[in-house]
Order: sequence, then C-alpha cells, then structure tokens
Amino acid sequence: MPEYHAPIDDIQFILAEVLDVGQLARLPGYEEATPDVLAAVIEEGGKFCEQVLAPLNQSGDAQGCAYDQGHVTTPDGFKEAYAQYCEAGWPAMTAAPEHGGQGLPHLTRFVLDEMLCSSNLSFSMYPELSHGATSLLEHWANDDLKSRFLGRVVDGSWGGTMCLTEPHAGTDLGLIRTRAEPAGDGTYRVTGTKIFISAGEHDLTENIVHLVLAKLPNAPAGTRGISVFLVPKLISGANGALEPNGVRCGSIEHKMGIRGNATCVMNFDNARAWLVGEENKGMRAMFTMMNGARLGVGMQGLGLAEVSYQNAVRYARERLQGRAPGTEHSPQEADPIVMQPDVRRMLMTCKAYTEGMRALAYWVCMLLDVEEHHAEQSERDAASDLLALMTPVVKAFLTDVGFECTNLALQCYGGHGYIREYGMEQFVRDARIAQIYEGTNGVQAMDLLGRKVPEGDGRLVKRFAALLQKELEGAQQSDSARVKALGAALAPAATALQRATMSIMTRAATDVNELGAVAADYLRMFGLVATGWMWLRMASASRAADTPMRSDKLATAEFFMAKLLPQTRSLEAQINAGAAPVMAVEF
Amino acid sequence: MPEYHAPIDDIQFILAEVLDVGQLARLPGYEEATPDVLAAVIEEGGKFCEQVLAPLNQSGDAQGCAYDQGHVTTPDGFKEAYAQYCEAGWPAMTAAPEHGGQGLPHLTRFVLDEMLCSSNLSFSMYPELSHGATSLLEHWANDDLKSRFLGRVVDGSWGGTMCLTEPHAGTDLGLIRTRAEPAGDGTYRVTGTKIFISAGEHDLTENIVHLVLAKLPNAPAGTRGISVFLVPKLISGANGALEPNGVRCGSIEHKMGIRGNATCVMNFDNARAWLVGEENKGMRAMFTMMNGARLGVGMQGLGLAEVSYQNAVRYARERLQGRAPGTEHSPQEADPIVMQPDVRRMLMTCKAYTEGMRALAYWVCMLLDVEEHHAEQSERDAASDLLALMTPVVKAFLTDVGFECTNLALQCYGGHGYIREYGMEQFVRDARIAQIYEGTNGVQAMDLLGRKVPEGDGRLVKRFAALLQKELEGAQQSDSARVKALGAALAPAATALQRATMSIMTRAATDVNELGAVAADYLRMFGLVATGWMWLRMASASRAADTPMRSDKLATAEFFMAKLLPQTRSLEAQINAGAAPVMAVEF
Repeated sequence: MPEYHAPIDDIQFILAEVLDVGQLARLPGYEEATPDVLAAVIEEGGKFCEQVLAPLNQSGDAQGCAYDQGHVTTPDGFKEAYAQYCEAGWPAMTAAPEHGGQGLPHLTRFVLDEMLCSSNLSFSMYPELSHGATSLLEHWANDDLKSRFLGRVVDGSWGGTMCLTEPHAGTDLGLIRTRAEPAGDGTYRVTGTKIFISAGEHDLTENIVHLVLAKLPNAPAGTRGISVFLVPKLISGANGALEPNGVRCGSIEHKMGIRGNATCVMNFDNARAWLVGEENKGMRAMFTMMNGARLGVGMQGLGLAEVSYQNAVRYARERLQGRAPGTEHSPQEADPIVMQPDVRRMLMTCKAYTEGMRALAYWVCMLLDVEEHHAEQSERDAASDLLALMTPVVKAFLTDVGFECTNLALQCYGGHGYIREYGMEQFVRDARIAQIYEGTNGVQAMDLLGRKVPEGDGRLVKRFAALLQKELEGAQQSDSARVKALGAALAPAATALQRATMSIMTRAATDVNELGAVAADYLRMFGLVATGWMWLRMASASRAADTPMRSDKLATAEFFMAKLLPQTRSLEAQINAGAAPVMAVEF
Repeated sequence: MPEYHAPIDDIQFILAEVLDVGQLARLPGYEEATPDVLAAVIEEGGKFCEQVLAPLNQSGDAQGCAYDQGHVTTPDGFKEAYAQYCEAGWPAMTAAPEHGGQGLPHLTRFVLDEMLCSSNLSFSMYPELSHGATSLLEHWANDDLKSRFLGRVVDGSWGGTMCLTEPHAGTDLGLIRTRAEPAGDGTYRVTGTKIFISAGEHDLTENIVHLVLAKLPNAPAGTRGISVFLVPKLISGANGALEPNGVRCGSIEHKMGIRGNATCVMNFDNARAWLVGEENKGMRAMFTMMNGARLGVGMQGLGLAEVSYQNAVRYARERLQGRAPGTEHSPQEADPIVMQPDVRRMLMTCKAYTEGMRALAYWVCMLLDVEEHHAEQSERDAASDLLALMTPVVKAFLTDVGFECTNLALQCYGGHGYIREYGMEQFVRDARIAQIYEGTNGVQAMDLLGRKVPEGDGRLVKRFAALLQKELEGAQQSDSARVKALGAALAPAATALQRATMSIMTRAATDVNELGAVAADYLRMFGLVATGWMWLRMASASRAADTPMRSDKLATAEFFMAKLLPQTRSLEAQINAGAAPVMAVEF
C-alpha cells in the first residue's frame, strides 16, 4: 500500500527561501498571514492528509461510488473524513471573513490542494468544486443570493458544482442547449442535461448548489448568449424545510480513475434557479471559477507526481535486484535498485520536475493574492498579467508532466507497479484525467499561444521575459560558479523560447493553422523554461550549499538543466517546421 | 464501443513495396510462402481478429478472469474464440511441419500478432505464451519430450507458459529459489513459487505445459546455475489418463489492464518435471523463447497504437466541436475536430509512429526467417547480428511509443476518452504492461547499449550503420526532390547517433555509471533513427506519389522528419551530459 508524507520541508524551502512568503503579510488584508501562521496551517493540513485522507485513497478507488435511483453513495469513510474536514474549518480557509471565511491567502489553499491531491484525489474534488462555487458566488452573486447560499457552502455543509458540459458541447460551450425561462417572480426555471459533472450528486453534504450554464430565451448564439444560474438540489419549501428541486442525477460514469469521485449526468427539469451576475455574461463569471479551477487541476498533476515519486523512492531503496555498477566484488547477493543509474534517472526526473513545478505553481498562486490585495495598481496589474499568462501553463504542463512522473514512478516498481495492490497504477489512472478536464491541454495551449501571448502586443510575455532576464543576469554575476553555470544553461533555452515566439507569430500571419499546429509544443517549451527559471531561483537560494537541503537543490537543478531542459532544442525545431506537415494528410 | 479494422492495405504496402516479402519464398524451406499465400493468410487472420476477437475485448476487460480454488475461468466467449482459433489452425502457423506445424515464415505470425494485439491483447497472450513454449521446445527439447508434448502445444489443445519470476527475483533471475531434485528415474521434482505467470492457469486448454526456471542441487550461484524444466499441469497416470501434477495456481493478480489474461501465482510442490536441454544452461534456452517474446511484446505496443489511432480518427471525424481555423464564415455551427490542427498533430503523431514502427518491426521479424533459412552463412550471420541489435529496440521503443500513442488517441476523445464505455482508456491500461514485462524497458536499454552495441567491437551497429548509409546515399541521388529532402533531414540524426555512440563509449571507459545513466535516452534515439530510416524507405517506395496510398506515405514521412525525429537533438544533448547529474543526489 502506498504511503504519503507531506513534503513539508520542500514546501517550506520554496515558501521561505525562494518566494519570500513573508511578503503576503505585508499586503493589506493579509496582515495576519505571517510565515509562521502559514507554516502552522500547512503542517496541520499535511497531517490531515497523511492521517485521514491517504488511508482512504486505495479503498475509495476499489469501491468507487455507487448509484441508486438518483442517489450517490461515496466510498466508505469519505463521509466521516468530510465531516472532519469541515469541522477543522478547511473549507472556509480562503473565503472572505464577511462570508464566514478565514481570509487566508489563496496560496495557502493551493498548498493544501497539492497535499489533498497527493493523498486522495477523488476526495479532494468534492471540496475543490465547492471552493470554485464559493469563488464564483463571492465575485458575481448579489447580496440576496450570497446571504442565502454562500455561508453554507463556505462552511462545507453544502457542496457546490460547476455544470458546463453537455453531451454535444464540451470544449465548445457555445453549443449548449440547456435553457432557462424566467418564472415571473425573479427566479428562473432551468431545463437540460449536463454530463461529466464532478461531485454532481453525493452523500457528503445536506445540499448541493449547482452553478449551471444555460441560455435565456432569445439569447445571442454562441458563447455570448450564456448565463450562469444557481440551481440548488434542495430548496426551502413553504414551511422553511428543504424540499427537492427539479434536479436529478441520472447516472454516474465508470471511469479509468478518480473512481471515488462521482462524475454525474445531471438532469434539470424545470428546476428553480437564480441568475448569477448579468444575463448573457455567464462565460465571464464562469471564468472566475474556471481560472482558479485550472490552477487547481495543475496541483493535481503536481500532487500525484509527488506521491508517486515518494513511493518509488521507498520501493527502490528496499527492492534488492541485480548488482549496481562497480559493486561486482561486493559480498551481497543483490543491491537495492536505487543504486542502478537507470532507476536514478527515473527518480531524478520525477524529483526535478516535481520540485520545479511546485515552485512554479506556488509562485503563480501567490500572484492571485498579489492581484487581489496589493496596494499598488501597477503591482496588481503585473500580477494579473502574469497570472493570465501562466494559468494555462500550470494547468497543462503540470498535468502532462505529472502524468509522465506517475508513469516513471510506476516503472520503478517493475511488474509490481502494474498490480493494483501496490497503488502505483491508481496514481497513473487518476492523473490521466487532469490532462483533459477544465479545458483539455490542447485548449490550454491555444489559450496560451492564441490569446495570452499576443495580448496587448505581447505585454504578458514581456513581463515574464523581464523576470527571466533579471534572474539570468543575477546568475551571471553570482559568486557561485554552479549558479553561474546553471544560468548559462538556461539562457539559450530562454532565447530559443523568444525566438520561437517570434517565428510563430510571423508564420501565423500567413497561415491560419500555425497557432493550433504548434501550440502544444510551444506550451511545453514555455513550461520547461519557466520551470528552469524556478530551478535557477532555487539554486540561487541554495548557492552556499551549506545544508543537505541546499546541496540537494543545487544538484537537482543541475540535473534539470542537463537532462530535462534540453527538450527545448527538439521543441524549437518542431515548432519551426510549422503547420504544413500537420495539415498535409487527408483524414 | 471501439472498432477494429485490420489495416491490410498498410500491411501489404510494407510487405510488398518496402520489404520485398517475395524474398521469403526464395529461401530454402519457404518455397510455398509466396506473397500471395502470405497475403491470403494475413487477410484471413485479419477477419478473425475483427469478427471474433475484437468484440470480446471490452467485455473481457470488464469481466476479467475469475479465480476459484486453483481454477481460473477466462471471460465469457474466450473459450469459444480459442476453439475457433485452434480449429482454423492459427497456433500451428509457424511451427515446423515435422511437429505438426505449417512451417510458414515467422514474419506471418508477427503480422498476425499485431492484429491479435489490436483486437484483444488479453486473448492474444494465451496463444503467444504457447508459441514461446513451442519455440523453446523445438530448439532445445530431446526427441522424447518433443514427441510427448510438442504436438499438443502446436495444435493448441495444450497451452504453454514461461515461469521465470519469483517474488524476490524479477529482473535478476540469478536470485531464484525454485529447486529441482532428480527423482532417480530420469525425471525431476520441482518445488517453488513463481509469480506474474501469464496464462499460468485457465480454462482454454485441456492441459498446460509450464517451462520453469529452477536450480539443481549444487548448481553454481547466479544465472549460471539455472536449468529449464518442463512441468505439465497434468501428467499421464498409470492408465494413461491425465492426472494432476504438483502444480497449483495460488491466486491471480488484480491488474491495471490485460484483465482478460490470467496473471498467476504458481505453486510447484514436488511437481514431476523433465529437464529441457542441458543442466545449468537454462538461461540460454530461455532466451530462445524470450527473444521471440520480446518481439511479440513490441507488437503489443504497435497493435494498441494502431487500434487506438483508428478509433481516434473515427471519433475526430464525427465529433463536431468549435470552429476550425479559417472557417469563421461557414454556415455550420461547428466543425469536426479532425479539422483542428492540434487534433491533427495528435493523429499524425500516432500515424507516423505506428506505420514507421510497423515497417521496422516487420523488417526485424523477417530477419528471424533469414537467420534460420538463408542458404548463405554470411546472410544468416548478418541477419542474426541485426536481429540481436534490434530486438531490444523493437521491444522498448515500440512499447514506449505505443503507450504514448494510446494516450494521444485517448486525448482526442476529450472527456469521453476517460470513460470506460468508449474503450480508449482500456487501450492505455493494456498498453502500460508492455513497457514492463519480458524485461523492463530499462533492461532492454542496457541490453542494447551494454551488450549489443559493444559486441564484436561494434560489429552489430556497423551493420546497421551500413544499411542506413546506403539508404541515405540512395536518397541523395533520388530523382524525387521530396525523397532527397527526407534523406537530408535524416542524415544529421544518423550522424548524431553515431557521435552519441562514440561519446558514450569514451565516457564509459572511466565512469561505471555511464551506460546505465544514458541507456534509455540512447535506445530512444536509436529507435527514432531506425524508424526514420524506415520512413525514408517507405518514402522512396512512394516517390512517384501517383496513388493516394503513396502520396499519404510521402506526407507522413515528411511529418515524421519534421515533427518527431527532432527529438534526437534533445536526446543527444541529454546523453552528452553523461552520468554525473543522475548520480549526484543521495536517495
């Protein structure tokens, strides 16, 4: 059975030594979020994940959710764990105090998210969806709706969902057919079928607040005619008691993984609904939820990479098999496979990706806090730009690489990795979904290259390039030869990324297929350079190499630059080949 | 539900236009294996796979195998399908006529293998294991054993297995503890526990012939003290009827995939056994079986890549979602996603890999026939060298890339790819094992780089380099500008591979960890160059571009060189970074 140990030291290293998490307490409204407070919260969260959630992960997968006549039962133990989760106040962590929240920085929740995903991805999605609903309601709901619904979602006693996809409308939400009719009393009636609704129905909460995309009569075609409605599973009846609304779970999906989370078909039949925000402005509101959710999905890739890596290291240390190079004359019959260079290659790949991605993700999540809380408009704007740029990178790069890492970790187990009992194959199955939902990674790549990169004449990328440049210049002047060498390794990749950006834009001017054809390669190149930048920052923070932690970080940074960053060379060549080879064959 | 259509046209293109399959009928003993005969056999095999096996693939996965008190029941329909399989004579296809076989070329069986794996990997493993047993017995058993056992395995009425792995001994077979004691009557008694035994117990055949690695008393330590024993599940009793031997299936594994195939714990308790071949020479004999099995596992990667690609194309043609670039003013609400460049990138990647790997694999499998049948010793030697060199490449490259392709195909389905009903996630789960069994891909990489490449002062690689060079020179002189350009794209990658080989050997002279640290990157580089070579051959055969097939091949070759081959650039850089970054961190 796999184990999970919250990587508190690695997390704290990034927060304290790389990202200067102390800056959060200097932001208005976050005065109490001192590094000590955050550290204590994170440590507490880690314990909860280790002790309560991780032990339910494998059993939850084996048992799955059960569907019976509209009702969904979650796996044994989930209900009790969820009650503990709420009792400890975790759902309210980052909500605004005026809505019953604790008002902690968003970063804290994403750190918790990583640990939730490591310990039990299926479980994590129930509160994650509720959090998305909280965030949307906080931003867009009127005071009446807030007062009626928000407090219950914030304290976790009610759940939340986002109901977007329909059988014929996934990536393209403009095609949705769910419709909302005004009821004449200020409410609406929603009718339609939604699919792939995570946590759409379950037994963890008394009620569920669905946020549903639907079209009003005579709404404009496409995404400009979409509105968001709040549709509770249960509504207050005449006597104040909760009564069923016209919402029913029609079935749950049988999936490759995340089997402990209910993925529901939701049928809305004349369900009473409340408009959230303005008519036909639903996509804008939904993106409030979706951008956070995309970062959350990135944490899923990270969390699963971390936990599978931890277990692979443990297994590789214990498994005796074959002789390691240079030990031919040793008396033992066999050496632990962790001494095999090929096993180390796999472990180091996981380690270098995972820690690099963690630093990158935490940095991006902190931008959310800066964007919302910084006193200076210019700082808020900068954070907002960088956040917009990096959100698709975090979502897609972390989930693609996260999936790769779970597979490398499985491979370290040999045949045992393929057996359910050892739990490694579950991590692979669970990780696979993250590349798909909240916008497939292909959609993320187009968001990056088609929208974020060209935005404001490249304003967003220029901001990132400036940060990168500053770090590279710092490395050049570093008193550490190792940091200098790391900067020298990263610099050509950074230049290649800029060059690729320019060459794509030039070709895109005359080829409508260019962006789509190279977007995935571009996003990966971007993710590698951004992760390399983070490793350079971690290496700079470790340049003295005077503790085991710092010397480990320096060596891992060197591995990243030597063995992973070179992918940018292939990617640049593939990008430069443009769209023609992709479009030439008839399908 | 996924579909499978045997890709007969693609297969025939390779056999007829690229590999000159007519040469087989010119080999002594293969006179009747004319291209027409082979084509007819392959077409018949394709129909069987499409009509009988493919419909059982998804149900077999859902149902899995059942274990009850030593007995294993295969999924519904497997027994009947196996009976049809035997009735049609498929098990006997390539066995020698003197053992009841049809004496067809090995290539034919591997082509069938590809189709078996595409249609139903779990099913395919039952006859595949029997085939391995046939091959080992044909080469190493004495006439007495052959006459008692071989005929029944060849006609499929008895199954076969290879029992190697033990709980503490997988990659390192030198650690096995199963022992064999002489019984005094020329037979032996085998005692021990084997795990991960595919098809170790099932209800498809009357009897099962286990080929078991065990140690004789006083055998030398390690792999030099291993012998092979034939241990039947049932043995002829006093009255000639079959009676149980001391072999029992203790349990079956619950696995990520290949759930229709029984992966068994096999307990041998004083089981009557016969020595196959010489005492303590078991590893050599086992490799007869294992080398063929490794090629067979390569076909698994290929077969799953093909079938998942086929389905992804079908889905992408049918699924309407979003607007394709340049269609903004079209009246349709949405376009098929096959028009999206990013979807095409995924499909083209699958297509270019799959067809390239098919050509490579078929070429390698033909070497088996040349090695065994060619009249000239020099030709047999050349084939033998190339076969030895390419076997680990086919095993590891085709299964690594095969897994990647199943994942890309799943991705084309979006959320539907993650749902069991659509069948795509089964291909991913099934494909994952092929990177592990028959020697993990890390073991294959070390076999290539640590054993095959240095062998005879590089004799094996030089043979391959000469073939490559000849093709590159041919391309240079081609009357087709497109073929010339493809050669020009491949040439630097070929040179880089040679350069990498030299640089590795130089570093390996002073660093014991070098080979292991770069072996996986080297194997991938090798596989890419070899596949590129095959694409150049396919392109040369298509240079007239005068049929849809040929023009498709040329365009796909161009995609391969532009978008996939560039990986060699990264790989060379990663290889040149050597072992140090891999070994620096303490685990």
